[in-house]
Amino acid sequence: MQFLNKNENTNLKKEDILLFKHKVQVRVRTWEVDWQGIVHNSYYLRYMEIGRLEYRRAFGYNLSPDGTFTDGLKVFVVHNSVDYHNVAKLDDVLDVFTRVSWIKNSSFCFEHVIVNHKENIILSTGKGILVNVDFVSNRPVPFPETFVDEIKQYEIECNIMRE
Amino acid sequence: MQFLNKNENTNLKKEDILLFKHKVQVRVRTWEVDWQGIVHNSYYLRYMEIGRLEYRRAFGYNLSPDGTFTDGLKVFVVHNSVDYHNVAKLDDVLDVFTRVSWIKNSSFCFEHVIVNHKENIILSTGKGILVNVDFVSNRPVPFPETFVDEIKQYEIECNIMRE
Amino acid sequence: MQFLNKNENTNLKKEDILLFKHKVQVRVRTWEVDWQGIVHNSYYLRYMEIGRLEYRRAFGYNLSPDGTFTDGLKVFVVHNSVDYHNVAKLDDVLDVFTRVSWIKNSSFCFEHVIVNHKENIILSTGKGILVNVDFVSNRPVPFPETFVDEIKQYEIECNIMRE
Amino acid sequence: MQFLNKNENTNLKKEDILLFKHKVQVRVRTWEVDWQGIVHNSYYLRYMEIGRLEYRRAFGYNLSPDGTFTDGLKVFVVHNSVDYHNVAKLDDVLDVFTRVSWIKNSSFCFEHVIVNHKENIILSTGKGILVNVDFVSNRPVPFPETFVDEIKQYEIECNIMRE
Repeated sequence: MQFLNKNENTNLKKEDILLFKHKVQVRVRTWEVDWQGIVHNSYYLRYMEIGRLEYRRAFGYNLSPDGTFTDGLKVFVVHNSVDYHNVAKLDDVLDVFTRVSWIKNSSFCFEHVIVNHKENIILSTGKGILVNVDFVSNRPVPFPETFVDEIKQYEIECNIMRE
Repeated sequence: MQFLNKNENTNLKKEDILLFKHKVQVRVRTWEVDWQGIVHNSYYLRYMEIGRLEYRRAFGYNLSPDGTFTDGLKVFVVHNSVDYHNVAKLDDVLDVFTRVSWIKNSSFCFEHVIVNHKENIILSTGKGILVNVDFVSNRPVPFPETFVDEIKQYEIECNIMRE
Repeated sequence: MQFLNKNENTNLKKEDILLFKHKVQVRVRTWEVDWQGIVHNSYYLRYMEIGRLEYRRAFGYNLSPDGTFTDGLKVFVVHNSVDYHNVAKLDDVLDVFTRVSWIKNSSFCFEHVIVNHKENIILSTGKGILVNVDFVSNRPVPFPETFVDEIKQYEIECNIMRE
Repeated sequence: MQFLNKNENTNLKKEDILLFKHKVQVRVRTWEVDWQGIVHNSYYLRYMEIGRLEYRRAFGYNLSPDGTFTDGLKVFVVHNSVDYHNVAKLDDVLDVFTRVSWIKNSSFCFEHVIVNHKENIILSTGKGILVNVDFVSNRPVPFPETFVDEIKQYEIECNIMRE
């Protein structure tokens, strides 16, 4: 249920991928493809989530059994979106590119590009907005400076919008 | 991983739900909740897809074993997005509201509101854009008039943007 | 990836289904079918779990947000098995039959038959063994008499093997 | 919903794992753990399936887009079972061991052991029985000698029961 025409379905240029330093590979599994032999649209959110977790792991943080990272933050996903440009098929190896494109006081944005590794075709682009919250009240609280600094240092381009 | 503050996380007003004539119920299942006891963000795309299928079924069409509807159309999902306002929890009964908010020449937009049935709280809003394609070339083709007419007739408000 | 020959793949006779008083219906969803248009083998464990939850709900118990039932018991699944006799296909409506076939001191067995509702064909049979454990030590403890009594009263045939 | 006591829940001895030459690693993902922070019982069938696919890939065969392997065979899963001995938790790295334990005329058996890589604890054991079928009639047909020979050559111990 995704777009099959390979050349014109995204404004993203190949060069834009150079902004993404973080990459993780996943392989399309049998239960992820539907009756058309193509990956069901919901699995892209999971590929993107793998990208997000491995992105944070690359900073040296680990996932605790309670689901929080050892960076000491508690974050909620408040938005996800995916644009489907070309289809992923059974057994395809996918490159999931992830970057943080902006940080505000208490929220930030993950951007993703998913590429067919072998054919070097952009399959989908997506993003997620996450909010930093207080552990008890679950109300938005500003990110600590350390969080902002380490991402600013890592990313080639990241729009910091802090007051 | 979603937003927990119940009162201020959506601009959608309760009245706006009156625009949605189609509703289907789902129950949150054990494997859909994560370590926080709340529904994983990827499942909302599936709840929305259940809404879309049942919406078309309400017009008298059925799903063929090959995954196409008996309306004779072949459509691709080219975009999905979800805004998470409040969390769905284990065993919650959810009302999935679905409407078609606009139709262009060869694409249209499904909008969704997902509501906790018992507590009457908006949990998430979302939308998907689908494109009508030729069965062989997979290239966009205009919707037949019958498709546009039957939706126009059904919906309280639907923006028709046909040339 | 399941067996397609309809007449000879199970020893279960139609009459045997009469032993199953509890039934719940599920509909096969788009993401559950694989590239062959048939339900992936892992989803049968989920259909069976829906059967188990609704079986307990039929006794008046509810699922708490923490995943335990209001019957005050904590149980672990220690075994699951499925025999695939015929395939379930996209959009099929399935009858999931569930019964408790035996109860020992601290374990009991759920048996299931999954039937294509429209065609009245047995698709799969399965079972699960669950163990009652102490909330703190997670060690097996005997079921309370009330649990055994209410199931004995409900089931047409249930082998009680208590010492 | 699995058994938590680590020392006594399986008869499988550590030495038995020496019979398994094939191993593949998976990492437990966020959506695979339930409200207890442990992997939902249905995902073990998927870990086992990853083991099966990679086992065949190790023989040099690939998965075609239509879901069949380039070994030219069409096989159906007719049985799956899992015994849960200890729990897998969020972010655990699992070793999935796979072997073919027996081959009959037109069926064979995959056996699996799933081990927590870091803690070296057996989490679950399982098996699946698959049947070789004719591409058109879907009726069981004997395996070609090449299939039997290459597995016999690879496995340390495999019970060949051919007539």
